[in-house]
Amino acid sequence: MSQFWSPIVHDLTPYVPGEQPRIADLVKLNTNENPYGPSPNVLGVLKDRANDALRLYPDPHGTALANVIAKRHGVTTANVFLGNGSDEVLAHVFMALLRQNKPLRMPDITYSFYPAYCKLYGIAYEAIPVNAHFEVALDDYAAEGGPIIFANPNAPTGNLLPLSAIEKLLKRVPNRVVVVDEAYIDFGGKTAIPLTHQYPNLLVVQTFSKARSLAGLRVGFAVGDVALIDGLERVKNSFNSYPLGALAQAGAVASFEDDNWFRTTREKVMNSRHDLTLALEKRGFEVLPSHANFILARHPGHDGAALAQALRDRAVLVRHFKLPRIDQFLRISIGTEAQCEALLKALDAILGK
Amino acid sequence: MSQFWSPIVHDLTPYVPGEQPRIADLVKLNTNENPYGPSPNVLGVLKDRANDALRLYPDPHGTALANVIAKRHGVTTANVFLGNGSDEVLAHVFMALLRQNKPLRMPDITYSFYPAYCKLYGIAYEAIPVNAHFEVALDDYAAEGGPIIFANPNAPTGNLLPLSAIEKLLKRVPNRVVVVDEAYIDFGGKTAIPLTHQYPNLLVVQTFSKARSLAGLRVGFAVGDVALIDGLERVKNSFNSYPLGALAQAGAVASFEDDNWFRTTREKVMNSRHDLTLALEKRGFEVLPSHANFILARHPGHDGAALAQALRDRAVLVRHFKLPRIDQFLRISIGTEAQCEALLKALDAILGK
Repeated sequence: MSQFWSPIVHDLTPYVPGEQPRIADLVKLNTNENPYGPSPNVLGVLKDRANDALRLYPDPHGTALANVIAKRHGVTTANVFLGNGSDEVLAHVFMALLRQNKPLRMPDITYSFYPAYCKLYGIAYEAIPVNAHFEVALDDYAAEGGPIIFANPNAPTGNLLPLSAIEKLLKRVPNRVVVVDEAYIDFGGKTAIPLTHQYPNLLVVQTFSKARSLAGLRVGFAVGDVALIDGLERVKNSFNSYPLGALAQAGAVASFEDDNWFRTTREKVMNSRHDLTLALEKRGFEVLPSHANFILARHPGHDGAALAQALRDRAVLVRHFKLPRIDQFLRISIGTEAQCEALLKALDAILGK
Repeated sequence: MSQFWSPIVHDLTPYVPGEQPRIADLVKLNTNENPYGPSPNVLGVLKDRANDALRLYPDPHGTALANVIAKRHGVTTANVFLGNGSDEVLAHVFMALLRQNKPLRMPDITYSFYPAYCKLYGIAYEAIPVNAHFEVALDDYAAEGGPIIFANPNAPTGNLLPLSAIEKLLKRVPNRVVVVDEAYIDFGGKTAIPLTHQYPNLLVVQTFSKARSLAGLRVGFAVGDVALIDGLERVKNSFNSYPLGALAQAGAVASFEDDNWFRTTREKVMNSRHDLTLALEKRGFEVLPSHANFILARHPGHDGAALAQALRDRAVLVRHFKLPRIDQFLRISIGTEAQCEALLKALDAILGK
């Protein structure tokens, strides 16, 4: 608290990211990073671009990157908005598109940054409960109201909605913005980007931090109708003209150019997710069906917070949310096979198996 | 204009950065970049860090970088705030510290992004005229009112205020935040950072984009009392937890470790500024005294816009602002000796010398 703060700052409840301890031997399964590194091509391009040209400002429009994203997803460059990680893209989305006269709708269990954005920009919102299976029930969003945001797959549940459910919602709310946050879409889901052609109220947000293994580079993007992108650009250009550095832009372009690497690593993650789910179920866990690079699981005989702490004591980090409805669960990022083994070994010791 | 925009978006007047054309043979003196590249040590570190660890999120606190900045400037890490370029730092400053009940004060001629931030966050402001010599007259800011921001050296005038003038103001407004934007301070000015020890209402903002030749990497920072930094952190953590990628952090640290490179290149820029000023004066220009890596100059016999266009026709880019009081001036970034020569040659052709 300080007399020098703008009045609004006193009321903020900032987002708290998962810890990023710099300890070498930790089995770090708490922040949904990809266990496999980026494509060697990406690393080669980054080394190449570490040159004198860094004295220059980067392309403020990120044209080369917007072009490859547009080409991949069958849209035009004018349908693509770039940001410093999808968190920044989302921040601008809340300011530019979701700050309407009627309250925003979002799931009660979802990415916990959304309420932080709402506080920052003074946006009222209604938290719509996920159903008993922890699924986002889109039928509950269509009744007269404000704009809508949800994650697909949802976080931290991993639950995936089919495109048909999303399209059904879009048909019912043609005058309200619908934002689909697809941070985890590449681990088995189908992107809603093709629907942006028919639905000018749909904005889809994606990231390079998960399936593309570039959390350290900070790149995210959104795809939607030109009018939505224009609104985002107006806010972005009132905030920071150059959000993406030259290396981030070049590395992200290179990532799109090595499709084989992308497909191979995400398949390895999906296979490990399958195996880990079975192994946890064998140990008595309830595991929610996940299409993301993490799973949400609880053990009927063990308190969630205590289990997270016991794992931590054994140098295995998972994420525990002290939140209603999910405080008995652990969110476990899918690691390498060796990391999954280490997790299971630690659990066996804790569960006394 | 779109029904899907948040109401505020309709009223924004986004900042327009200088052009970034990707043409090889252009003499680009329009965006105040350093004509000399970053230290080879920086490039070495960047190449080294282009590795598998990019799959991980960067340190959200930028601890290593905050540490070196703190050490260099004789403050603690808790006095340092980091951002994705000083533009992002400034955006958070406007939201966290300058959105008060009384209007913000700023010079009428200054960094033209400030009014864009004000629009974005709904901040009323008073533009205080610079004096007849285009100097920021701090005596005009102390009367009862809201927080204060100015650039020192100011942009696009290049005018430098002595620390004594800043301290005099600070003594007179102990209950109002004073932000000093020192983007250009390293080209001959003295930083106000030491004053932050005595004045808890002072925040100083700097960048790696100018004297440190890293515009392509996007790093900026602020230094001030812990309470000011806390306010900024609350806003930052409601916006984007990870604004600085791993490469940006590592490159910025390395830049601080090669002081010799820093000093040599900035001296070259200052020498060229001296020579260019004399050469322009010889050709009839009025050149405002500059302590930045640019000069603001006008020719009594030639219209500013026409002169900028004529230079452009000869592949020399300078910046012209269509703004009251300075629309007859050109803002010319200090280039290499060869670039300054090319500018003068083009001017001679235009002026018919």
